[in-house]
Amino acid sequence: MMTASTIAADVRAGRRTAVSVAEASLAAIAAGDAALNAFTHLDSTRALRTAAMIDAVVAAGGDPGPLAGVPFAVKNLFDLDGVTTIAGSKIEAGRPPATRDAFLVRRLLAAGAVPMGALNMDEYAYGFTTENAHYGPAHNPHDLNRMAGGSSGGSAAAVAGGLVPLSLGSDTNGSIRVPSAMCGIFGIKPTYGRLARTGSYLFAASFDHLGPFARSLEDLALAYDALQGLDPEDPAQSPAPVTMVTGLTGIEGLRIGVAGGHFARNAHPEALAAVGIFAAALGATTTVDLPLAAAGRAAAFLITMAEGGNLHLPDLISRAEDFDPATRDRFLAGTLLPAVWVQQAQRVRAAWRAQALAAFEHVDCFLTPTLPCVAPPIGQATMVVDGETLPTRPMLGVFTQPISCIGLPAMAVPLARPDGLPLSVQLVAAPWREDILFRVAGALVAAGVAGAPVVPGLVAPGPVTQS
Amino acid sequence: MMTASTIAADVRAGRRTAVSVAEASLAAIAAGDAALNAFTHLDSTRALRTAAMIDAVVAAGGDPGPLAGVPFAVKNLFDLDGVTTIAGSKIEAGRPPATRDAFLVRRLLAAGAVPMGALNMDEYAYGFTTENAHYGPAHNPHDLNRMAGGSSGGSAAAVAGGLVPLSLGSDTNGSIRVPSAMCGIFGIKPTYGRLARTGSYLFAASFDHLGPFARSLEDLALAYDALQGLDPEDPAQSPAPVTMVTGLTGIEGLRIGVAGGHFARNAHPEALAAVGIFAAALGATTTVDLPLAAAGRAAAFLITMAEGGNLHLPDLISRAEDFDPATRDRFLAGTLLPAVWVQQAQRVRAAWRAQALAAFEHVDCFLTPTLPCVAPPIGQATMVVDGETLPTRPMLGVFTQPISCIGLPAMAVPLARPDGLPLSVQLVAAPWREDILFRVAGALVAAGVAGAPVVPGLVAPGPVTQS
Repeated sequence: MMTASTIAADVRAGRRTAVSVAEASLAAIAAGDAALNAFTHLDSTRALRTAAMIDAVVAAGGDPGPLAGVPFAVKNLFDLDGVTTIAGSKIEAGRPPATRDAFLVRRLLAAGAVPMGALNMDEYAYGFTTENAHYGPAHNPHDLNRMAGGSSGGSAAAVAGGLVPLSLGSDTNGSIRVPSAMCGIFGIKPTYGRLARTGSYLFAASFDHLGPFARSLEDLALAYDALQGLDPEDPAQSPAPVTMVTGLTGIEGLRIGVAGGHFARNAHPEALAAVGIFAAALGATTTVDLPLAAAGRAAAFLITMAEGGNLHLPDLISRAEDFDPATRDRFLAGTLLPAVWVQQAQRVRAAWRAQALAAFEHVDCFLTPTLPCVAPPIGQATMVVDGETLPTRPMLGVFTQPISCIGLPAMAVPLARPDGLPLSVQLVAAPWREDILFRVAGALVAAGVAGAPVVPGLVAPGPVTQS
Repeated sequence: MMTASTIAADVRAGRRTAVSVAEASLAAIAAGDAALNAFTHLDSTRALRTAAMIDAVVAAGGDPGPLAGVPFAVKNLFDLDGVTTIAGSKIEAGRPPATRDAFLVRRLLAAGAVPMGALNMDEYAYGFTTENAHYGPAHNPHDLNRMAGGSSGGSAAAVAGGLVPLSLGSDTNGSIRVPSAMCGIFGIKPTYGRLARTGSYLFAASFDHLGPFARSLEDLALAYDALQGLDPEDPAQSPAPVTMVTGLTGIEGLRIGVAGGHFARNAHPEALAAVGIFAAALGATTTVDLPLAAAGRAAAFLITMAEGGNLHLPDLISRAEDFDPATRDRFLAGTLLPAVWVQQAQRVRAAWRAQALAAFEHVDCFLTPTLPCVAPPIGQATMVVDGETLPTRPMLGVFTQPISCIGLPAMAVPLARPDGLPLSVQLVAAPWREDILFRVAGALVAAGVAGAPVVPGLVAPGPVTQS
């Protein structure tokens, strides 16, 4: 599968038709998705119709946009016109179809991209593994026995596995960065309030972010720029200054640090080593001290449970048995939390946020591992970290949760690795400074240390559900 | 007792000394406070020393400021340097004294005002009556058997009773407006985030406002202007545009409405009649429909309990018996609320806020009763409203709670009334438009319908606690 930028350049120049690209994506999905289980809904009719319209624009001498003919798919919590937004659940599957595309889907369509369908996820986005009891687990293209990560597991598996060059996901506690890391691709969780959430199914509203996945940094920038823009219908979006990132390069003048403490423990040596490789390539020697990170993560757990429990309260009361067992108990526990604990968690969150913001007086960007480990095998319930046996699922968010609960922009950047499972480093910047993330990641790509590792061999062909 | 503006003009012109004004205030306190129980701490030494410094500035040809020599006192939740901030409680009384004045106290000192001491309140500001189990009830200067209102009851009684021309209080659900109304004076609760809270004891932080009380609108404007200003130490203060209000007049171009629904029920006829008198004087005929007001008030109850319960959790666990019985049960209940209810209350609050803000597309200011009734007798547990017997305490906030929980600026304006107990109308404007409140109140004063009713006879003399 080609990159989005190559596809768009070829389609705009008339060297290749959007329909042929869509057909190639459909073929890749038909060949690979039985093994990956990334798609929960495929709409070849809409894909081919949209592609044909792009080709007609080109034929008429028009410019269909910077993502002309680029196939994409979305986590199944984004509304697609005419499709029921299932959000990984059985409960939502019984509800009527959406009557309009989500705002970010409309942004990609306006840029000329071609929608292929909807992607697998943890139920209601509450998980880091996409081991979905209703729709089955998503599989990691690098090793089909391993997790693709979650909750946007389908979004990462579809891109890493070459089914589409771009996808969209959501990130509440790490749900873009964790699967990006497991599958060895680029994923960005922008600043809280940056991208409009209209037409997407929320989880914990004060933490929910949306963002893109891609195999190349250039593609990620193209997608992110297409997604930026104000939606007057979203009360939670911020009218913050917009910086386009496509083509941005150079890290002159940037002060880059490495997070210590919590972020230098709690991980396997190879995950920490990846940070060391990037730090060496960037000449980053400053250690950033963030003593409240672990407390901030604890606060994130409580607030997520309470906000999620509130959102699903009617269904938890009337039909708890229809939830995925992996989410049910946590949602129920969230409904039982005392308000004073959550209030206290909000105090901790505010203190942690203040501490993290103060760090940006000394650095413009800091590095942490994205994950404590490589992708674990599907079903692995525990893992050993720092000599301690811990539950796998919550540990997967150990480095991403502290960052999302205070809304900082962060990018998962894959280590360029000739073999072995993917490793990833998280870049973190101050609010609204996604441009810095792209500049630093660009320097790492240019230095040859960052880049999506090649998936060894194609995934096995097999049948695919057609809408 | 003269007005603050007369005092300041006389002191600045050298026609009167600040020391003589402070002595007059001390004499009024000595004569009246045994009956009113407004003061919990009097500091004549500091008062006279500050007054002497003001006089020295005048003698040296300097200008001591717009509140030169004006005595003031503060609700005992404001820090006064060297004094323990008791916040109406026995628990805080055992803690060390404050080491600095609260920010707003410093603002008044910088304007030349003279601090007399600290004033009675409901414990931890959780009440509308100042029936304080530890320090006794504040009494209403218009009828000593009646409540002064709360939680800033001492602040209103001290001003209405002529002990000081200005005071400060706090308002979480109505605690400035309710006592202002009961005692027949002017009180303003500015926009949430307008006045800095550094050095004041919070209650429910997302609702807590500070503001001044005065017997004349001119004095209220002088005080409010002196209080405005940014405090870099207060993270909750907003850098909103500042408008000085002293001398502002005229309501040309302002669209003034009367709130219907919830605000046109739930009250005794005389309270609603006061609104009618003001509306007639202003030519206000538009009815403002606010159907979510009652739901917003319900949300305010829950969030207040939860935030207050969180704040006092350690003491509620370790020494619940030391709380005032009037606050203990509600704080304890707040600690037991499920987080999902409070989360739901925040959703309701957001919807109510959006509805109220939309009303300002049609009007610039609207009127409601401040209270449903005149000041009830101290100890009266129930009241009859619309044929229903209801608990007195919560009903006193029926019109103020919906406004504070969404942070709108509001002013309690007394009806000019030759006899009978005070009645009051609440003026409400859009965020940051306190200037509109002052302009509308000014028109009501100019029309002769608004103004503090005279207290019939002086209160009985008696002893007063000296610091």
